[in-house]
Amino acid sequence: MNDEFYMNLALDLAEATQGQTSPNPVVGAVIVKDGVIIGLGAHLKAGEPHAEIHALRMAGEKAAEANIYVTLEPCSHHGRTPPCADAIIHAGIKRVIISSIDPNPLVAGKGIEKLKEVGIEVTSGVLAERGNKVNEVFFHYIRNKVPYVTLKQAITLDGKIAAKTGHSKWITGEDARSDVHNERSKHAAILVGINTVIQDNPSLTNRNENPGKQPVRIILDTHMKIPADRKVLQDRIAETWIITGSEVPEAKIAEFENEYVRIIKLPSPVIEIRELLERLGEEGIPSIYVEGGQAVNASFLKEKAVNRLVTYIAPKIIGGNDAPGMVGDLQVLSMDDALGLRFQSIEQIGEDLKITSSMK
Amino acid sequence: MNDEFYMNLALDLAEATQGQTSPNPVVGAVIVKDGVIIGLGAHLKAGEPHAEIHALRMAGEKAAEANIYVTLEPCSHHGRTPPCADAIIHAGIKRVIISSIDPNPLVAGKGIEKLKEVGIEVTSGVLAERGNKVNEVFFHYIRNKVPYVTLKQAITLDGKIAAKTGHSKWITGEDARSDVHNERSKHAAILVGINTVIQDNPSLTNRNENPGKQPVRIILDTHMKIPADRKVLQDRIAETWIITGSEVPEAKIAEFENEYVRIIKLPSPVIEIRELLERLGEEGIPSIYVEGGQAVNASFLKEKAVNRLVTYIAPKIIGGNDAPGMVGDLQVLSMDDALGLRFQSIEQIGEDLKITSSMK
Repeated sequence: MNDEFYMNLALDLAEATQGQTSPNPVVGAVIVKDGVIIGLGAHLKAGEPHAEIHALRMAGEKAAEANIYVTLEPCSHHGRTPPCADAIIHAGIKRVIISSIDPNPLVAGKGIEKLKEVGIEVTSGVLAERGNKVNEVFFHYIRNKVPYVTLKQAITLDGKIAAKTGHSKWITGEDARSDVHNERSKHAAILVGINTVIQDNPSLTNRNENPGKQPVRIILDTHMKIPADRKVLQDRIAETWIITGSEVPEAKIAEFENEYVRIIKLPSPVIEIRELLERLGEEGIPSIYVEGGQAVNASFLKEKAVNRLVTYIAPKIIGGNDAPGMVGDLQVLSMDDALGLRFQSIEQIGEDLKITSSMK
Repeated sequence: MNDEFYMNLALDLAEATQGQTSPNPVVGAVIVKDGVIIGLGAHLKAGEPHAEIHALRMAGEKAAEANIYVTLEPCSHHGRTPPCADAIIHAGIKRVIISSIDPNPLVAGKGIEKLKEVGIEVTSGVLAERGNKVNEVFFHYIRNKVPYVTLKQAITLDGKIAAKTGHSKWITGEDARSDVHNERSKHAAILVGINTVIQDNPSLTNRNENPGKQPVRIILDTHMKIPADRKVLQDRIAETWIITGSEVPEAKIAEFENEYVRIIKLPSPVIEIRELLERLGEEGIPSIYVEGGQAVNASFLKEKAVNRLVTYIAPKIIGGNDAPGMVGDLQVLSMDDALGLRFQSIEQIGEDLKITSSMK
């Protein structure tokens, strides 16, 4: 078996933990000696041991003179756990094979350096494309200090999100809706506009069989119009953060805040998407899943603040100009002004299509 | 090599002539003797020899005791050419392998019967699914006596066919637009509404490098508002048929008609899609490619008169409720009333997607 084989296995382990390690990256590790796997590990939860440590523990004394495959450069600094590079050195590992380099420019390459200094052979960049892909969201967050934004919509083939009466249950079939719950679980937060909360009173929770960690529910509510009886304020299933403009009175805020509900006032009277994302980044939110209506979608797209669009297309036609489309006005007057995307993947989910794209 | 191998070859020959045999079906034939191909044929043009005849001519006297693979049941009646079943018998063919049975219920099975009567071994239904697919349009026409309707649209991801100013050049990229010209060449007629002709003054011709036979251009123009200077009336590249309601004065019709331009008055004052399709069927049009705007699309969909939808989706977003969507009002008030489709195929063409669907 070659390096790619074991690195693919380590990446499989990393990928399996998507959504449970936030705000940390997903990482997998495999230790091999004389063609036999002697240790396996993955980082399972922030604050718990890193992937390398789990794998080294499993290998025990056999780790001496072995090779370790790790999907992300081992850390060289003391965080909530001691540096993995030290543990690798201490265990007597002979060769370290790495997929992605640490995305933080301040520490990138430092782990590798430390290992090389003591004579350990290091190979990096093995299956780097896959390695970078599995941590796309985390890397974006570390480099830009704002959350990675996924904008999700469910539309008919003719681009409608509801009938002209507002009726929208359901656009897509069961399989696509279940996929949405999977996607929710992979994000640190779900974001909607206040109109959605007023009209639909959604739970905004991940309701798959094994929900895992529930994302924070973020409601954009400039003037704090949210009615007190909404599920997101009452159910205590997940945290709810209400984002308001700068002019909401403190008294009103105090009225709503509790163990599960936070009110975050932004500096401008109207919510600015850039200010919002910076603040969410500071609050430690690496990724958000935007499930907005026309207005929220338009405001994110106008700011080019979308990293990935996930569009479910149902095999249905609603027709008419009065039925709402997926995005509000963008002031597009000619085709040259249209917002450019790049299609990345297309799959059929049940009877629907799931199209993933990025902004150009 | 088995029956499927030679039938696939015969079907390849049939498929290659798509668009050039109208109003006849596409047919391919392969003659095999002692494991060697001794004759190949396809029906190339209405009025010219059928596939079997070309193949028998190529085989010459060697056809005696050979097997013939033919994608459609050989005809048993005198049409514009003598019956192929007679020619097969006369050539001394030992075995006939057929994919599709003749779709015309009046003659279905008669060709096979004639062959069996003289002791020829007949196997039918070989690769019948593919055989029926290559002549889907023709079979529909023969069975229902109305054209097979393909409704084509080019939209942005959010379902728009133009900016709110009406600007729409171009929604899709070059590859998708070239695919549209291919699709045009496979249909007997292209259909648009009068608004398209007034606003865009299109040529509605197939402008691929080798255009082949130009489809008839059909304009829905209830009140005969078409300006005399339009390309479709002036260019003499293809026939143009103007479809009007019953109340257009004869004098106006006489003014426009010439060698290239026909005016067809329908029985009702307003164009009824069912009356239109029946009339086009009578006129020998087996297939139409509808490139309408909102109103034309809505009228065909409301009548459930669409056999296949071809939707090109561009990686672009226009946004806003004032930018026109692909289909006019269908009186859909709840999701249960939405028009149901079934996605059949998805392919990427250049930067765009091509989605084919059928009505449920």
